[in-house]
Amino acid sequence: MSEWSDHYATRVSHMQASEIRELLKLLDQPDIISFAGGIPDPALFPQQEIAQAYQRILSDPERSAVALQYSISEGYPPLREWLAGYMGRLGVTCTPDNILITNGSQQGLDFVGKLFVSPGDTVLVAWPTYLGALQAFSSYEPRFDVLPGPNTNRTLESYTAGGKAKPKFGYVMPEFQNPTGTCASLAERERMLDVAAELDLPLVEDSAYEKLRYDGERVPSLLALAAKRAGGIDHCKVLYCGTFSKSIVPALRIGWIVAAKPVIQKLVLMKQASDLHVSTLNQMVMYEVASAVIEDQAEKMRPVYRARRDAMVAALDRYMPEGVSFTRPEGGMFVWATLPDGIDGAALLKRCIEVGRVAFVPGAAFFADRSCRNTIRLSFSLNEPAKVEEGIKRLASVLKQVIAER
Amino acid sequence: MSEWSDHYATRVSHMQASEIRELLKLLDQPDIISFAGGIPDPALFPQQEIAQAYQRILSDPERSAVALQYSISEGYPPLREWLAGYMGRLGVTCTPDNILITNGSQQGLDFVGKLFVSPGDTVLVAWPTYLGALQAFSSYEPRFDVLPGPNTNRTLESYTAGGKAKPKFGYVMPEFQNPTGTCASLAERERMLDVAAELDLPLVEDSAYEKLRYDGERVPSLLALAAKRAGGIDHCKVLYCGTFSKSIVPALRIGWIVAAKPVIQKLVLMKQASDLHVSTLNQMVMYEVASAVIEDQAEKMRPVYRARRDAMVAALDRYMPEGVSFTRPEGGMFVWATLPDGIDGAALLKRCIEVGRVAFVPGAAFFADRSCRNTIRLSFSLNEPAKVEEGIKRLASVLKQVIAER
Repeated sequence: MSEWSDHYATRVSHMQASEIRELLKLLDQPDIISFAGGIPDPALFPQQEIAQAYQRILSDPERSAVALQYSISEGYPPLREWLAGYMGRLGVTCTPDNILITNGSQQGLDFVGKLFVSPGDTVLVAWPTYLGALQAFSSYEPRFDVLPGPNTNRTLESYTAGGKAKPKFGYVMPEFQNPTGTCASLAERERMLDVAAELDLPLVEDSAYEKLRYDGERVPSLLALAAKRAGGIDHCKVLYCGTFSKSIVPALRIGWIVAAKPVIQKLVLMKQASDLHVSTLNQMVMYEVASAVIEDQAEKMRPVYRARRDAMVAALDRYMPEGVSFTRPEGGMFVWATLPDGIDGAALLKRCIEVGRVAFVPGAAFFADRSCRNTIRLSFSLNEPAKVEEGIKRLASVLKQVIAER
Repeated sequence: MSEWSDHYATRVSHMQASEIRELLKLLDQPDIISFAGGIPDPALFPQQEIAQAYQRILSDPERSAVALQYSISEGYPPLREWLAGYMGRLGVTCTPDNILITNGSQQGLDFVGKLFVSPGDTVLVAWPTYLGALQAFSSYEPRFDVLPGPNTNRTLESYTAGGKAKPKFGYVMPEFQNPTGTCASLAERERMLDVAAELDLPLVEDSAYEKLRYDGERVPSLLALAAKRAGGIDHCKVLYCGTFSKSIVPALRIGWIVAAKPVIQKLVLMKQASDLHVSTLNQMVMYEVASAVIEDQAEKMRPVYRARRDAMVAALDRYMPEGVSFTRPEGGMFVWATLPDGIDGAALLKRCIEVGRVAFVPGAAFFADRSCRNTIRLSFSLNEPAKVEEGIKRLASVLKQVIAER
């Protein structure tokens, strides 16, 4: 009798348990201050509005029969209609036919991989980039290479040397990137589009943290800029992945993709083959809740998260030893810290959990090649400012010990 | 500037719009009697129980905070615990670690394709088989071949001739197969397991219609039989896909896979990379509703669907011209009819919609090679007996015209 591994597709060998996943299990220990998960604070959820929306829909026999039945793979038409307007307010002129509803933006990323990647194809990502994107794309067995950025000039020839095919797409998170928290400037976004045009490269824009800006001015999305250049969304090659996970709640599992109509038509077929459609009821509820409260929610969340970010940056300034640098994000949920050369983020985490009772995510997980082990990701979203400060103090204390022992 | 198709993965060329999907759009025309979709009757949904479960969970601040937050990829532990007991009552001894919660059983099928199939691998399916399974597996670019059945003896050598690798898995629907409605006997199931052992072939058992038996005795599932042979579920090579779509409601999008632990561990990684997890809230609601009413629901549905099946079979007996044969299913939602040679199901459908105002699904869609165009699938689930009779009468009338014109 053969082993299971003899039966598996080749892609399975690339599937490994995620560090983040294992770390999330630590959240259950109440004396640990966790900066690990990129998780919204449930105290900020619009619980009343959600409860009322379920009740309204399910107490109406006619709407209830629709809400509990199979529905079209594209997604609930009023939600797509509302999203077309929402995207319009972000500077993207589109119609519901440019929109597919997905199970959170994570499914958007999975579909992007499924759409573009055959085994061995090249995908360009930032270095570091969102771990969940690496996992989603890896299912389709790509090679990863570095997306040209402010400090990386790459020519098409540098990607295709040795007979390799040209890259299939580039994945970018211009708004408060996971894991670094940084926001691409307008000039950087325009440069990304220039490079994409040179490489004939579709770009996938992940805008999960779009509503969480605490300082500074909004910058137009890549999709908005690209559509403007191309004379309309149907002529440009940017796919935009959005989600309600950070702006409303994660657990209804509702995100969306905005792209040119021919792309959406393929993605609808993919959605149908993958899981038919997103929960009809959840889409109806999300339509009611998002259309009523999304801007109020943003107003409610921003000062809370801003104070936590301020507390984290101040504590890092105050407690961190020399040789540690870190980002000062204008939004999102993360600060990214670079430790002195030779300090291993994973080993530090182990020590921090044992001694300091504080947790974070080692940075190597966010690099396609698992390099840069002297980096860590710190999420400030879940803890009150005083706890943020206490956690950073503990982390700095352990780090100083580790440095002293070298 | 290149075309979108230049950027796509090779799999995209296999993605085509589904006949069923296009046909579902016809349901909106009220004068058409539709036997097309395999859709449960919303009048039978446990609407009150579902509304109450949402209200109970969302009015409790502590449970609500959990229900609206991210959760583990495996699925909600109490639901998996309950499913382990439910599977036990079906003769499958397992633990929650043998269970992954999916977005309906359709996602289970997608994951099976993702787990086993690299491009060019052989997948064995019945001829005909469930169209949605063909779509899900096709994303991973297999070759399809015929699963050995009562009338098809195939040796391993017949599959591997010409240097082809041995088949990766076989997909079977022993309970009231979509599209034929037939149920495999105990002897047929034992024979399937014999053949699978000879071929060293994992089997994927889709049991979507399991609760919808109207006559006859329950036959143990393939997984139950295989686990008994192997001395436990962790030693056998059957993966079981279940769903609440036909037993409770489709729109919460909740199904499950039961398999050996090492397989579930891989599928959990796949779930995480694909869309993180099924809606936490919907899982909590489904746990409460299914554990309370699943057997009552089955008792409520069976007489209703039985009467519709009886009406369809009686009407086919009464109205169909000579040369038409059809199944007499003991359960499920479908009757499968074979028309006289040379009658094309798709052409007949067009005529039926135009002239007879009655719809169904042409059978060719259910064959991996689109053969057997003289077959049709008739769903009896959505129409009252009188309407079923009227629809079959209309269909027979159009068919007789078509035969007369030949």
